[in-house]
Amino acid sequence: MNANLSAFEQAVAEMRSAVGQQYVVVEGEDFALRSRDTIPWQRTCSAVVYPGCRDEVCAVVKIAAKIGLRVWTFSKGKNWGYGASMAAYDGAVVLILERMNRILEVNEELAYAVIEPGVTYQQLSDHLKSHGIKLWSDCTDSTPEGSVLGNALDRGLGHTPYGDHFGSLCGLEVVLANGDVIQTGAGPAEAPAWHTFKWGSGPYLEGLFSQSNFGIVTQAGIWLMPEPEVFQAFFCEIQREEQLPAVLDSLRRLALAGALRGTAHLINDVLFLSMMVQYPHEMLEGQAYLSDDARKRLRSSIGITPWTLTSGLYGTKAQVKANRALIQRELKPYGSLTFVDRREMATFDKLVGFVKRSQDRPLLSWLSKIVKKWLIGPSSMEVLEVIPHAVSLLQGVPGDFIVRFAYFKSRHARPTTDVNPARDDCGLIWFAPVIPLTGDHGNRLLDLCRPVFHEHGFDLSVSFIVVNPRSAVALMEIFYDKSDSDETARATALYEQLCTVALQDGYQHYRTNVANMERLMSHAPEYQKFLEAMKSAVDPHGTLAAGRYGSESRPAD
Amino acid sequence: MNANLSAFEQAVAEMRSAVGQQYVVVEGEDFALRSRDTIPWQRTCSAVVYPGCRDEVCAVVKIAAKIGLRVWTFSKGKNWGYGASMAAYDGAVVLILERMNRILEVNEELAYAVIEPGVTYQQLSDHLKSHGIKLWSDCTDSTPEGSVLGNALDRGLGHTPYGDHFGSLCGLEVVLANGDVIQTGAGPAEAPAWHTFKWGSGPYLEGLFSQSNFGIVTQAGIWLMPEPEVFQAFFCEIQREEQLPAVLDSLRRLALAGALRGTAHLINDVLFLSMMVQYPHEMLEGQAYLSDDARKRLRSSIGITPWTLTSGLYGTKAQVKANRALIQRELKPYGSLTFVDRREMATFDKLVGFVKRSQDRPLLSWLSKIVKKWLIGPSSMEVLEVIPHAVSLLQGVPGDFIVRFAYFKSRHARPTTDVNPARDDCGLIWFAPVIPLTGDHGNRLLDLCRPVFHEHGFDLSVSFIVVNPRSAVALMEIFYDKSDSDETARATALYEQLCTVALQDGYQHYRTNVANMERLMSHAPEYQKFLEAMKSAVDPHGTLAAGRYGSESRPAD
Repeated sequence: MNANLSAFEQAVAEMRSAVGQQYVVVEGEDFALRSRDTIPWQRTCSAVVYPGCRDEVCAVVKIAAKIGLRVWTFSKGKNWGYGASMAAYDGAVVLILERMNRILEVNEELAYAVIEPGVTYQQLSDHLKSHGIKLWSDCTDSTPEGSVLGNALDRGLGHTPYGDHFGSLCGLEVVLANGDVIQTGAGPAEAPAWHTFKWGSGPYLEGLFSQSNFGIVTQAGIWLMPEPEVFQAFFCEIQREEQLPAVLDSLRRLALAGALRGTAHLINDVLFLSMMVQYPHEMLEGQAYLSDDARKRLRSSIGITPWTLTSGLYGTKAQVKANRALIQRELKPYGSLTFVDRREMATFDKLVGFVKRSQDRPLLSWLSKIVKKWLIGPSSMEVLEVIPHAVSLLQGVPGDFIVRFAYFKSRHARPTTDVNPARDDCGLIWFAPVIPLTGDHGNRLLDLCRPVFHEHGFDLSVSFIVVNPRSAVALMEIFYDKSDSDETARATALYEQLCTVALQDGYQHYRTNVANMERLMSHAPEYQKFLEAMKSAVDPHGTLAAGRYGSESRPAD
Repeated sequence: MNANLSAFEQAVAEMRSAVGQQYVVVEGEDFALRSRDTIPWQRTCSAVVYPGCRDEVCAVVKIAAKIGLRVWTFSKGKNWGYGASMAAYDGAVVLILERMNRILEVNEELAYAVIEPGVTYQQLSDHLKSHGIKLWSDCTDSTPEGSVLGNALDRGLGHTPYGDHFGSLCGLEVVLANGDVIQTGAGPAEAPAWHTFKWGSGPYLEGLFSQSNFGIVTQAGIWLMPEPEVFQAFFCEIQREEQLPAVLDSLRRLALAGALRGTAHLINDVLFLSMMVQYPHEMLEGQAYLSDDARKRLRSSIGITPWTLTSGLYGTKAQVKANRALIQRELKPYGSLTFVDRREMATFDKLVGFVKRSQDRPLLSWLSKIVKKWLIGPSSMEVLEVIPHAVSLLQGVPGDFIVRFAYFKSRHARPTTDVNPARDDCGLIWFAPVIPLTGDHGNRLLDLCRPVFHEHGFDLSVSFIVVNPRSAVALMEIFYDKSDSDETARATALYEQLCTVALQDGYQHYRTNVANMERLMSHAPEYQKFLEAMKSAVDPHGTLAAGRYGSESRPAD
């Protein structure tokens, strides 16, 4: 031990000896990248640590606790738009668990996997395919390099019937602030039902480790979907903007009836555009956001409708037929409704590929008409290109096509590979309130938020995600040009104003970014006091991510 | 204030002034009944308090905390076989919330109700019917006077697709040990999604209030099932005892495929017998339990098979047809499979009633043959009588016919009304381990437990309850004659031995009785320490049910 070293340097030295020299990073490009995301708020960490196993996690936590360092843990740190791998404040030690990436078990019979936090969507999906395992994983529409567990613990959402990711977790191994390791469920070690029965014996505690700072999850079971006999994607192109409330009511009825099993996504025109093209500044006509008329012209030129619904059907032939009939009855009145099965999708892929490669103008025009007519009504090449990616997600196959929408207002070219909006300085903030799944609430929330978007000079971009038969997340995107300081300031002000107006009507966030967690419980002081009393008892020095999701105040230092 | 009163008497006086003279009971018949259940362990309370509202609950908690009294709360105290309204130790103040029995809201559109703890299955079911609300509640097969919330917080099970009662809770109001009142979800008071979105913002805490002692739930939202277009009950009579593992594997496949949506119950012959007749002592032939041959003869005389499965189909006509086809394919090989819809059930009811009332011998014989043939193969009048009750439960309509099985070995006559096995000194202990839903685990558990039952001179009575597509509760009943001290001692020893052998193989309890909670976490010391640290922080004097579900050790006094 060197007496000349500061306490921090001493801790770094100890952490290096615990996890290996190269796995504690305090400078350089990788270190700098860990303080970047698409949100306008920035936090700088003091060190980035890459432990290789659970025992190394325990060791790092103990070393940090000794000198009062705060440890913020991320599985992969790809949580773009919510903070990526940034803590809520400067100076935290950032733990990245990407080296812990073992798939420990896949139980095909009971349809679950046991994985470590570093396992990505791509890795899990590939593993199942290459081993011929007849189970499907779910994924988000963000990067295939995202962590399955990290997203689930943050309660993220996907596209299949297993799209409520936290709802699919069962049986966690957790490192506590004191370095103890526990298994949820209160069972003996490796109890047979650990990954099949959530509630366990006594209090059900797994919820305490989601969107929180009570422990570091080092492995978990996740339920997977048995490959269905039949899969069909479906798209509904809603003709009129004002049909939204009726559509939301239809979605509730379909979900309650079990016809809509997937995590349906209903996206508006601006969001759909962002997936296909760069922001059409040329259509602003001096305004800061697109006029109703401009959006109408854009929709018409690219071939989309005010709202587009995507979801999937899964089951036996007869189950799918029964549910499809219900969906047709409910959704047909709103516009064109298209169902695509896997065989059709393959043909479609080939045709679209051929159309794109063909340089023969008349042939191109003729083929493109066929593809459009056959599948989805009048449409454009841009729309046709999105479809295969949407259909993949509905089967739990990840891809980074959709998340490129984060480049919508960026001056950085939209990449075709190595998509990384945090690194590329894209501007995106999520605002994600939850509503009861009724047309009235959908309308009310949009009526609250739309003027705020406009007032700050932004277009309303939104998708309603049916997260359960009774609720939807109204996921709004604030796209902004991060290189424009005025626009960045307006985006920040917009976000803050949205939080205020939505909360006044009682709409809470399903998930929030790391710089804005304090406001979550500001209106529920007894609740916060209760949570903080428990947190203080099991983590008296706030070693684990103090301030995360408001369950302990940000430290004073 | 009277200086001559003891601290306890003083507290009683204060509680009386808070809730009303007649609502604090320290002697008499009602008081004595609160220390009785069907389990062989007895605990005596010091007072029974009946608060009328949330504020009175807060007041009682504060008064109790002042002098270190322990408060054990029960909604109705009908938790027969698990302890009813007994605490884990003598001297507790027992809070019964039966006066808080308001149905605060039914939201038909979003399919949920908000209720107080005193609301019973019967009350909720009647309320929905009498108001013409097209929603179904779920219920257990115990008394219609049980509390909907009490059972859900204890994570009890029912029979419809909403049979995982804790899984159907959403949005709790909780009184804490310090008298604070919180709403789960971290939202502003009365947030619109409070009863539609479970996870809320930040850590999901509702699990912390199930099978626990972290708070007293004073109201909650519970999701209800929209009345399906079509309901069909189905019964499968499994021909051979050794088919059990194959049947369990079939049930898993059906549940994973979404065909089996209800909480299917697969009961063995002894349990089925207990619902129909008194224990057949005359067939023991000197043994303490029924021989294989005796059970065979009993089955044959009463017309049942070694295993019987009951569950329901719910949905549109086409959905039910699709799922029924899957069920037929999987279950047909095991024995007779009968589906009954509501119209058939009404006709059946009438026929059975007529057969029972008829005194004309030849007519009786002829009619009885028709009824049997028509519905369910060779059977007896006793079996025919059970069917309507089973079918009611599958529609969430409660009844006290089934729970009369608690009188199986009692010398008390099996009542037709006012069923109350705790009052009537029946002997019943539940043993309720959870298994992954595979034939192997089912077999393994029975192979572990059957010899232990026999060794102690008892028949194995068991139902496998499919609680989710990946797990089943193997709910075993220890029926004993409480007036026989030897049999009572053997029942006690049997229970303890079952706990030991099952736990050795890792099978935890899904739920346990109040006298045996300590052993739940004995094998998970770090887990228990974590839980106790949190409990001590929010309830330093152990005012709320210290010792419940092992989350704080029983007090030393």
